[in-house]
Amino acid sequence: MAIIEKVNYPKDIKNLSLKELNILAQEIRDFLIEKVSKTGGHLASNLGVVELTLALHKVFDLPKDKIIWDVGHQCYTHKILTGRKDKFDTLRMYGGLSGFTTRKESEYDVFGAGHSSTSISAALGIAKARDLKKEKFNVVAVIGDGALTGGMALEALNDAGVSKTNLIVVLNDNEMSISKNVGSLAMYLSKIRTSPKYLHLRHDIEVLVKKIPALGDNIYKSIEKIKEGVKHLVIPGMLFEELGFTYLGPIDGHNMQNLIDVFQRAKNMEGPILIHVVTKKGKGYLYAEDKPDVYHGVGPFEIETGNSFFKSYTTYSKVLGEELVDLASKDKRIVAITAAMADGTGLKKFSQIFKDRFFDVGIAEQHAATFAAGLATQGFKPVFAVYSTFLQRAYDQVIHDICLQDLPVVLAIDRAGVVGEDGETHQGVFDISFLRIIPNLVILSPKDIAEFRMMIRWAINYDKPVALRYPRGGDFDVDFMKYDEINLGKWEKLISGKGVCIIATGRLTQNAMLVSNKLKKNGIDATLINARFIKPLDYSMLDEVFNEHDFIFTVEDNYIAGGFGSAILEYAAKRNYKGKIYLCGYPDEFIPHGNIALLYKKYNLDVEGLYNTILKEI
Amino acid sequence: MAIIEKVNYPKDIKNLSLKELNILAQEIRDFLIEKVSKTGGHLASNLGVVELTLALHKVFDLPKDKIIWDVGHQCYTHKILTGRKDKFDTLRMYGGLSGFTTRKESEYDVFGAGHSSTSISAALGIAKARDLKKEKFNVVAVIGDGALTGGMALEALNDAGVSKTNLIVVLNDNEMSISKNVGSLAMYLSKIRTSPKYLHLRHDIEVLVKKIPALGDNIYKSIEKIKEGVKHLVIPGMLFEELGFTYLGPIDGHNMQNLIDVFQRAKNMEGPILIHVVTKKGKGYLYAEDKPDVYHGVGPFEIETGNSFFKSYTTYSKVLGEELVDLASKDKRIVAITAAMADGTGLKKFSQIFKDRFFDVGIAEQHAATFAAGLATQGFKPVFAVYSTFLQRAYDQVIHDICLQDLPVVLAIDRAGVVGEDGETHQGVFDISFLRIIPNLVILSPKDIAEFRMMIRWAINYDKPVALRYPRGGDFDVDFMKYDEINLGKWEKLISGKGVCIIATGRLTQNAMLVSNKLKKNGIDATLINARFIKPLDYSMLDEVFNEHDFIFTVEDNYIAGGFGSAILEYAAKRNYKGKIYLCGYPDEFIPHGNIALLYKKYNLDVEGLYNTILKEI
Repeated sequence: MAIIEKVNYPKDIKNLSLKELNILAQEIRDFLIEKVSKTGGHLASNLGVVELTLALHKVFDLPKDKIIWDVGHQCYTHKILTGRKDKFDTLRMYGGLSGFTTRKESEYDVFGAGHSSTSISAALGIAKARDLKKEKFNVVAVIGDGALTGGMALEALNDAGVSKTNLIVVLNDNEMSISKNVGSLAMYLSKIRTSPKYLHLRHDIEVLVKKIPALGDNIYKSIEKIKEGVKHLVIPGMLFEELGFTYLGPIDGHNMQNLIDVFQRAKNMEGPILIHVVTKKGKGYLYAEDKPDVYHGVGPFEIETGNSFFKSYTTYSKVLGEELVDLASKDKRIVAITAAMADGTGLKKFSQIFKDRFFDVGIAEQHAATFAAGLATQGFKPVFAVYSTFLQRAYDQVIHDICLQDLPVVLAIDRAGVVGEDGETHQGVFDISFLRIIPNLVILSPKDIAEFRMMIRWAINYDKPVALRYPRGGDFDVDFMKYDEINLGKWEKLISGKGVCIIATGRLTQNAMLVSNKLKKNGIDATLINARFIKPLDYSMLDEVFNEHDFIFTVEDNYIAGGFGSAILEYAAKRNYKGKIYLCGYPDEFIPHGNIALLYKKYNLDVEGLYNTILKEI
Repeated sequence: MAIIEKVNYPKDIKNLSLKELNILAQEIRDFLIEKVSKTGGHLASNLGVVELTLALHKVFDLPKDKIIWDVGHQCYTHKILTGRKDKFDTLRMYGGLSGFTTRKESEYDVFGAGHSSTSISAALGIAKARDLKKEKFNVVAVIGDGALTGGMALEALNDAGVSKTNLIVVLNDNEMSISKNVGSLAMYLSKIRTSPKYLHLRHDIEVLVKKIPALGDNIYKSIEKIKEGVKHLVIPGMLFEELGFTYLGPIDGHNMQNLIDVFQRAKNMEGPILIHVVTKKGKGYLYAEDKPDVYHGVGPFEIETGNSFFKSYTTYSKVLGEELVDLASKDKRIVAITAAMADGTGLKKFSQIFKDRFFDVGIAEQHAATFAAGLATQGFKPVFAVYSTFLQRAYDQVIHDICLQDLPVVLAIDRAGVVGEDGETHQGVFDISFLRIIPNLVILSPKDIAEFRMMIRWAINYDKPVALRYPRGGDFDVDFMKYDEINLGKWEKLISGKGVCIIATGRLTQNAMLVSNKLKKNGIDATLINARFIKPLDYSMLDEVFNEHDFIFTVEDNYIAGGFGSAILEYAAKRNYKGKIYLCGYPDEFIPHGNIALLYKKYNLDVEGLYNTILKEI
């Protein structure tokens, strides 16, 4: 009988020997590869932390002790060990196990996540609460080297460092972030890792001391030299020590004994502690070790070959990359920026061809937005490609640095609308509402890929802030639509009807088209409008619509509250329109995880749902 | 003739001698004290950087070289030196000089500001643009030690540190942030400042070396000891050096010669450079030196005594503090959090009485929000007091960490609505729109101070996320209103009328009351509703309103787009209301600086404006 079969809760591993723990680690890896190959999910990050998670659960006592997983995309082993092993077949499916930590799911998930860099803040809050209540337990935040570059993680380090509070930060350094782009912290970690384990310490100090006599003569020069000397001396973790943490490490994150030892040691120490653990993303699955970026988040795949079961089709992300490469080859002013999402946003090829004009600033959306604004002041045309949900991180910068200064930055907003399996932390369903209220900003959304290509070109050549929102995944060509030129604030009337008008924006326009056809068969000649511009509205077309229709239905992949339909209502109120306006979108609740088609159905945004809504309301 | 009289542009100081520059510094101080005593403004921060600014303009060639002022609240001397001296009488007045840097005002303001921590991002963008264009000029970001703790500044440091780009960051360390609360970076800076200028260097290294022989025996312990040794050795700025910057400093920020020397030196160096300058906030004006926090931002005052010309009256901020102190004395679970705004948000007294339950996390709104969420998971009732405009920085955290997890954090949103003289970067006119779209969040706004007290108590005892928005400044008691108990989602009908209904939220309800009285004299019996809850709406009262009124006017201190009125429209559309709804609020433009009363007037939110709007529309 495999060990994993007897393991359901933390207590089940407490008495396992080192040998058994290592066997269990292998069994968990096999389990994860098998399950994720069927459901899809975050593979590489989870394979990297199997020993780390086992060691944490062995040393700490959950749920009394608290572990806060940053992002939460590495929590699968934690879920296996906390009563959720049997639900892995439902991973990331509607109604099933979440792909992240979430408080709703288990008392062992003390703080939910999905977005990066929140764990130290949450852990510090929990630790301070413990101190105020004079309770005793351990609080551990587990954060990756990528997430550590997020501003709020650094804010939290700065706050925690002087707190004297007992708090353990496990820095899971999986060496992913090592490229010239990702910042000096990554460089620093790399330096620690690659230093030949303190062997040079003695030698370096000797060299250093030889420099001392010069001190009297030329103090500045000597200090400069000594500074260099001390730098090369590499006392590991001095940077964290300067920030008030006790640094332990680096530790081999796949050596169970070392991990258990260091956690045990940290448990008995006082104050904020940072444990630097080095792991390998994708550990134990050849294909994932080889291409950890590709296996970071995957769909179902064949275990033997690592091949995806899905045929690749044209995604909006890929189209962004293609178009930008083409445009940038003709226009030197085009530069592209990503916050650690070169692959996800389709900019990989751009980054290879236009090395100097591509900026991966790390997980740092705030900096990315203002950095783009800085480039724009000098005549460049920056495109900041970012997921809708992560743009929430740069909201103030979009207002304060880009739009207030009316700078021509293009926000290429990927994963707008529901994103599916990643669920409630990742749904891009706020952006229309929070962006359309910003003065100076123009917002577009394409109904399909061909129109997206046109919009990218239009946005690049428009000399003001532009937000271009487009959905996750791809599309097939839709040949029944013709394409007019894009003109500022001009919509596209796809079908001229009477009485009933559907105004749709984005990919859902395709559903609306099918609904129109269905209505026609039922004797209803509905007008169909593709609202290419979410802001500004096409006021003259709206005036026509108001004149000729008693029923207007707006369709959007966003919350109803404050969204596109709400903007139509505002204008209708102004024009004193007396017909009925019905808004189709998401109600006032967080949208759970599950397949996109299924979510459209749940919220009546699929063809059937829209059709029934319209029939019911008219 | 005073030197200042001949100074209008940077060229005018290029040939001044050191002595003349020092005289000019004094003249500028006198000028600033005189002008700001009349207009109000940021005094202490500007007095602190007079020499720094003169030295920068002496060494660098603007506008070819670029200086980016972080926050921009220290740019007055820069404005004096760049053609705007004669406009200082209009400082912060409607149509006059902005209190911050702004691109609209001058080509010398290469990047506008108002919010903190943006300068390094912008500067790096400008520097990268320069490199791509193969141009040659210097880029200098001037940032305070407080602003440096903002997450995006740290993101930018991390990015800039590996960039090899020529970029100068002037760290204006005015020692303001030195309290136990403001983080390890501040501690670190303090350590550099107070270290006895490298004198102990030799001694420390000797001590260090004596520890070497132990190395072979017990490597861990020895390294620990050596680490301590090296730490105390205090090589200045090693932390910044580790992040890839060349560190120069600390420099006395009031010694003109030293400043000129160090800037000259930096100008000829390669790569990212950090110059650590130590200044004194309020320098040269006794009262401001004494109480730099009080003189950070001031209204008009008497120069001889430092006394404000305004009588102090009860502000909303003060009331928040009072109520929280009272509540906290009875309920141990109440804790308060601020992002470096203990004074501004009225929490000073709370911080003194409940030392352990008060958290100033530094300029770190993102961290503050998630830290609050962490505390809430452990049964505490955290109140995060924050200005509306700065809450934009924590938007994602409010969604992802507080509301998604449905945690009982109270967002005490100060300075909601127009804030007046601080102008377009600081107007709190977005929050209703960006908050009301978040599921689980309840939003309230009081019509006056008495109601505010009731709402604070209600919010604290409500076990879910609550946002409580209230305006800048204060109010006099309004005795003509009676107070019903606060009940979730229940509005207050102040006047029962017919035909016309005014639904107001927040302080503008007082204007609406006066408008109602005026209408009554004109024979119009308008209903007046105080919409205590912005979310949820009072649906049953709205149903009544829809039944009995043909005209509805909504009044809010927020953008019309997506705001409170827009929420009414959404419900009205659902109920198929056929009357006219007119939304009073701000149109789609950034709201300039100027006195609040004047801004209300400009946007027809004063009594006269509202009255005329209603007469015109009915």
